[in-house]
This record gives sequence, C-alpha cells and structure tokens, in this order.
Amino acid sequence: MTAPADKKRGPARPVITLTTDFGHDDPFAGVMKGVILRTNPEAVIVDLTHGIRPFDIEGAAMTIGMNCPYFPDDTVHVVVVDPGVGSERKPIIVSAGRQYFIGPDNGVFSWLYRAHKDSVEVFHITSSEYFLSGSSPTFQGRDLFGPVAAWLSKGVAPDKFGRLMSDYRRIDLSVPLISKDGGVTGEVVHIDRFGNAVTNIPGADIGTLLKNAKGVTVSFRGGDISVLKFYEEGNPGILCSLINSSGFLELFVSRGDAASLFNISKGDPVTVTKSRS
Amino acid sequence: MTAPADKKRGPARPVITLTTDFGHDDPFAGVMKGVILRTNPEAVIVDLTHGIRPFDIEGAAMTIGMNCPYFPDDTVHVVVVDPGVGSERKPIIVSAGRQYFIGPDNGVFSWLYRAHKDSVEVFHITSSEYFLSGSSPTFQGRDLFGPVAAWLSKGVAPDKFGRLMSDYRRIDLSVPLISKDGGVTGEVVHIDRFGNAVTNIPGADIGTLLKNAKGVTVSFRGGDISVLKFYEEGNPGILCSLINSSGFLELFVSRGDAASLFNISKGDPVTVTKSRS
Amino acid sequence: MTAPADKKRGPARPVITLTTDFGHDDPFAGVMKGVILRTNPEAVIVDLTHGIRPFDIEGAAMTIGMNCPYFPDDTVHVVVVDPGVGSERKPIIVSAGRQYFIGPDNGVFSWLYRAHKDSVEVFHITSSEYFLSGSSPTFQGRDLFGPVAAWLSKGVAPDKFGRLMSDYRRIDLSVPLISKDGGVTGEVVHIDRFGNAVTNIPGADIGTLLKNAKGVTVSFRGGDISVLKFYEEGNPGILCSLINSSGFLELFVSRGDAASLFNISKGDPVTVTKSRS
Repeated sequence: MTAPADKKRGPARPVITLTTDFGHDDPFAGVMKGVILRTNPEAVIVDLTHGIRPFDIEGAAMTIGMNCPYFPDDTVHVVVVDPGVGSERKPIIVSAGRQYFIGPDNGVFSWLYRAHKDSVEVFHITSSEYFLSGSSPTFQGRDLFGPVAAWLSKGVAPDKFGRLMSDYRRIDLSVPLISKDGGVTGEVVHIDRFGNAVTNIPGADIGTLLKNAKGVTVSFRGGDISVLKFYEEGNPGILCSLINSSGFLELFVSRGDAASLFNISKGDPVTVTKSRS
Repeated sequence: MTAPADKKRGPARPVITLTTDFGHDDPFAGVMKGVILRTNPEAVIVDLTHGIRPFDIEGAAMTIGMNCPYFPDDTVHVVVVDPGVGSERKPIIVSAGRQYFIGPDNGVFSWLYRAHKDSVEVFHITSSEYFLSGSSPTFQGRDLFGPVAAWLSKGVAPDKFGRLMSDYRRIDLSVPLISKDGGVTGEVVHIDRFGNAVTNIPGADIGTLLKNAKGVTVSFRGGDISVLKFYEEGNPGILCSLINSSGFLELFVSRGDAASLFNISKGDPVTVTKSRS
Repeated sequence: MTAPADKKRGPARPVITLTTDFGHDDPFAGVMKGVILRTNPEAVIVDLTHGIRPFDIEGAAMTIGMNCPYFPDDTVHVVVVDPGVGSERKPIIVSAGRQYFIGPDNGVFSWLYRAHKDSVEVFHITSSEYFLSGSSPTFQGRDLFGPVAAWLSKGVAPDKFGRLMSDYRRIDLSVPLISKDGGVTGEVVHIDRFGNAVTNIPGADIGTLLKNAKGVTVSFRGGDISVLKFYEEGNPGILCSLINSSGFLELFVSRGDAASLFNISKGDPVTVTKSRS
C-alpha cells in the first residue's frame, strides 16, 4: 500500500471540487460548502458543475475524467450523482493521478479506473467518526462525502477512512466501434450549452486513421461534413466538425446551435472513414 | 444586551452566505461579492442559493432556517428576497444561534425567531457610514446588505449598526394541523430539482403519532403510500415517502420525478394517521 | 507607457472575476478555475455572471462596464464571450480604472474604452510561455485567458504578455437619440430575472431634460408611465419606471413581471420628453 500516513497536504489552500446533479435552484451544494468549511476553513471550494442530468452516472464519469487533470495536485473531487444513496452501495475514496475522488461506488469513477489502471487505489469509507453526527440516509453529500472531503483536504490519509478494496464497480463507458479497414463508428454523447454535439470519437483514433490515407471523411446521416480547426472557420448554417478542447470529435455550426438546427440528440451515430480519393 | 463590543471574530476566514431570488442569469450576486471583498478581502463567500422564487419570502425563510445550522459559528448569512426594497421596511441584523443574519424586515427570518425565541436579538440597521456611498434605493443587496455583512464579518459588533428592536415582522410559517386523535394534515411546501415533494410535516410529529400505535399511514389523494428509509427502496413508478434530510416528510418516486409523474404542486394536502390494524 | 514593471499586487488575496456566455450546465467555468488555481492558489475567483446570451458581445460589454467599478483595485476581470475563438482575432489585456480586463479583441471592452478613453491601455497577448501547454484553439478561456489572468494576478506586469496596441476593436454601444428639444428616444436593452426592462437611457440625460422643465414624461407604446423612486411605490399590474441601480431608466411592475405582462422585448423603443404642462 502506497498511501501516505498522515502526510500534510502541500499548499496552504487545498482545493475541493463539487460535481453533482443537484441543479441550481436548491441549497444542496450550498449546505455542503457550509459543512466542509466547518471542518476545513482553509478549503477553496470550486463548483465543477451541478448540471449533470439527474442520475446520469456516465455523464458524471466523463465530466470528472476529462476535467480533473486541469486541477492542482492533491485536489479533492467530490462527485454526488447517487440514485442509490442510503442503499448498500459503498461510499468510496479513489486515489488516482495525484488527486483524490470521493463519491458513491456506482461506477461514476470508471473513467479514472481506465486512465490510471495500474496505479488507482480505492478505499471503502467506513470510519463514521469522520461523518456528520445524526446523519441522514438521504443526503450523504452533506453528511458523509462533504465531511470526508474536508478531513482528507486537511491531510488525513485515505486509509484512515477505511480499507483498500478491489471489487469496485466499473461501468462500460461509451466507446466507438473500429471496423477492419480502420473506420470508426461512434455516437453523440453530450450536447453542450451552445448546441455543439460532442461525440465519443477521440481525435487520436482519427489520427491513426489518417496514416497512409489522403484524408478522412466524417459522415452524419448519410452526408459528409468538413473537419475544421476552430468554430469560426465554418460557414453560417452549415454543419461542420472539429476536434474539441477535450480531444473528441464534435459537430457544430459556426455561431449557431447545431443540435437545434439539425435536431441532433444524444445517441445519434457519427462515422469516420478514410477518404476514397 | 449581550452583543459583544467589537470582539474580533475567531477564524481567519469569515464565512458570508448569500440567499436570494436573483436567479442565475444576471450579475446581481456577482457584484455583491465585489462589494463585500472590497471591505473584507478575507471573506469566504458561499452561495447558499439564488433559486428562491421571485418574492417568495416564506420559501427563503424555510431555506435559511433549515440550512444555517450546517455553517460555522459566526457565519454571516445575507438574505435578499425583498419585494419592498427602498420602501419603509427596515433593514435588520438578526443575531441567533451564534450566527448573524442580514436582510429586510419582511418576515424572512421568521423561522429563526421560532427556533431561537428566547435568545434572538434584532437590530435596526441605520448607521449609513457602513453603506456604499451614493446608494440606490433599488439594490440594497449591493449598497447596504453586502457592505454591512462585510463589516460585521470583520468583527464590528451588531449594535454598532443600529438599535435593538422588538417589533420585527413575523410571518406565519406553514405548519400542519393536528387533529384530536393525533392525525396530521400538512401540505406540499416545495418541489425540489429531482421532483421530490417536500411537505411541512416534521418527522418528529410522526414519531409522536407512532406512540402506542402499530404504525402510521401516509395518504395522498385518497391513496395510501409507503414510508421508507431511502429513495432506492422504492419500486419504479410508485409514489413513496420518507423523512428527508431536513427532517420532514417527503413524497418521491425512486429514480423518477414524482412531481411530474403525479402532477404534484405546492399546496397539495398530505395526511398522516395511525394505522387502523 | 505607465504600466508598472513587475510591481507586486497589494492585497494578499487577488480577485479574478469571470463573465461568460457558458451558461450553468457545462463544466467550462469550473475547469477555468482549476487552471487559475494551479498557477495562483491565492486567487479569489468570483463568477460575475455566466448568463450572457450566447455570442452577445454587446450584452457582455454592458455587464462588465456597469459592474466592474464595484470590485477592488487590481481585480482581474476575465470576459469570455468569444464566437471567433481560434481565429485571427487577438487576445488582449486592457488596463483601465486601476483594474485589468482579459478577453478577445472583439469589442467586448468597448464600454471601458468609452469610460476611460484618456487612460486606457490595451496589450496584445502573444507571450505563449504563459499559456497552458498543448493549448486547444477552441477553448482559450481555459488554455489562454485563465492562465494569463492567474499570472497577472500574481503581479506579472501587463506588458510582459505582449505589446501595447492601438487598433483594438470598438463596437457601437446602444445609445439613445436626443432630439432638438432635448427629448430622448432609447430602447430596451435587457430584460432581467424579475421581468424588469432596462433601457439605454441614462438617468443623467433625464436630469438634463428636467432643467427649466416642470417634469418629464416617459412614454411607451403611446402611453405615459410614471417615474417612481423604488419598485414598491408602483400599483399592482401597472407599468411604471424608475432610475435603476446602474443609473438607467427601467420599466417595471411592482411585484410582477413587466416583460411578460406587457410583452416587452429587447429593442422596444422608450421615449422621455419634457412634460407639456
């Protein structure tokens, strides 16, 4: 076991992030911050997003996996997308990539398990002395995950909260199919604020496809669409694509809402093939 | 008068929370933070919620009352739900439960008056030297409540801002009716992000009802619904209930949106009676 | 050139604000905060608003211009409303009114150019050593503006990021027309959360109009509407006006949603004339 024993966190101001499906109209995230600040007044708390769709575990897995690398070492990421709160599912701490992740063992950390498969450590949180007294079984974000994050950010080692475990839950993350000739069939996995349609096709796969090829063709509903470098390159009203800032193929309309204009939904298929000529 | 005279607040990083009906698309909360940080750069500012419905004083009273106990001692809670801004209604500071509350005297602190009725102190804010110069009568959140919160969080005693008063405004908070046989008739007071319908029936009332009874029956629109411990216990599509994390009876559908599925609205009656058999 | 060379920022906790059209459901603002905190863990990051309408450069210009004066000296304001991200448009730092502004050179700082026309300095950001390595051309908020804001807030002088420039882009901000007799014709430029309709008519113009006049008449769709001091003075259901907290004429209904009740939209004309009697 490589977990440090009570090593003090380095920076004076430890960062704790929150990723939830709480939305923005209830005080759920706000009260979690109160609980965290009671235990660690030095914590800097960042809302990564509260806009995960209710109970969308895969969406949360993707969000935390893609964005955590941009945070400082030792950041504690709390993820509360937890339809099974209060049931037998375990609360866990994941140590991966010099950061910590706290949440339910429902697969929400599967992206991390894949990205750090040789080094990830998972701890089953059982030490109730770190929980809020009088805990409710229906709001563990406030009563368990928040307090544990605060103590962890104060330098309590992850193995103080419970034992290492290996049977943590993984979910199958959406990945594109690759055919014999190297063609890739993926799908739309997220529509963002601007109506851009993010696919599960990594730019790296397209790079591989480009070897010994004259170019690639991106197809959507039987039509070919251009691959550009940035949004402004597109012509008004025309569906285009680019490799987005997370490294995935994305369909867009320059200064327009692609999802609305072309009625694009999560799950719609997108293919990339070698250009024929 | 027990208010301390210029006692320095304990922690290095005082907490100020904001609870408003500002929503999320305007810069109103953001500019309040600028004003607060100009006076107290050490303040840690937490958004409790900006999702109170416009002018919903009772909703704000419930939100701040239920959630403030989770914040540290000496936290300054600013509540701006203030349809009467600029009129004769007084700006006040409430000292209750080792915390401070700042806002309009329109009943928004009634939950605190009830919870701390023997110890609460209310001060009429009149010392304009603490206000922003050139104040507008239409945005006291920015020009009066924000600055006063910043000075209070720096250790200025509440009686420096104005005199103790006793004729502060209380509103009648929604409470359930209790019949002779101990039956309770309450109502839905809030629909949350997940479509859960929170009632005004305290779990404690149900506990009292349970004495010398075989159980309780929760009824909604003539049908009986189960009382469970956590959401995941419910069967898909079935309306169930539990005592929620704030200690109140709540109707829900496991992994579903109860309010949409059953067309539940604020004000809908819910009853709890002793089970007949 | 008056820019200080590596002067250390005064306060221990520098303030960085974010103003974007990102909305609230994606992790875009959250990940920018991670990037900023990696470089400057002492930064206090404030969301001014993420509710600018997609690509609404003029709306962002107004929002940052009206609200920045309420923040401390040396605050770094990051504005990301940037339909041209990745194209030839330049990234810039604006120094104005003892504060800094970072964003694209698309006119979003035009309000500041007007307010500080004799003292404003604009720098073309070109020093890529301050950018995130492996930058994407589609998310410069995360890869360029965020990191530059963090370094600037640590006391790096603005001229370290690139050269002074003078051909920065100004957009025409909506201003009212003033007729020979001093009458003012403006328009609705913003509908806020409460349904209040903010116009582009400054209260100062109305003050000028009042000289040697018995009063002013505000007209909307052929009807005259009262000018009051605060919202609560209005009668229920009646369209009224006041000078709002930013100093502009605003139409409202007391405790009601004026925009919905009277079907008011951005661009609707409003006139102010000297009263006839």
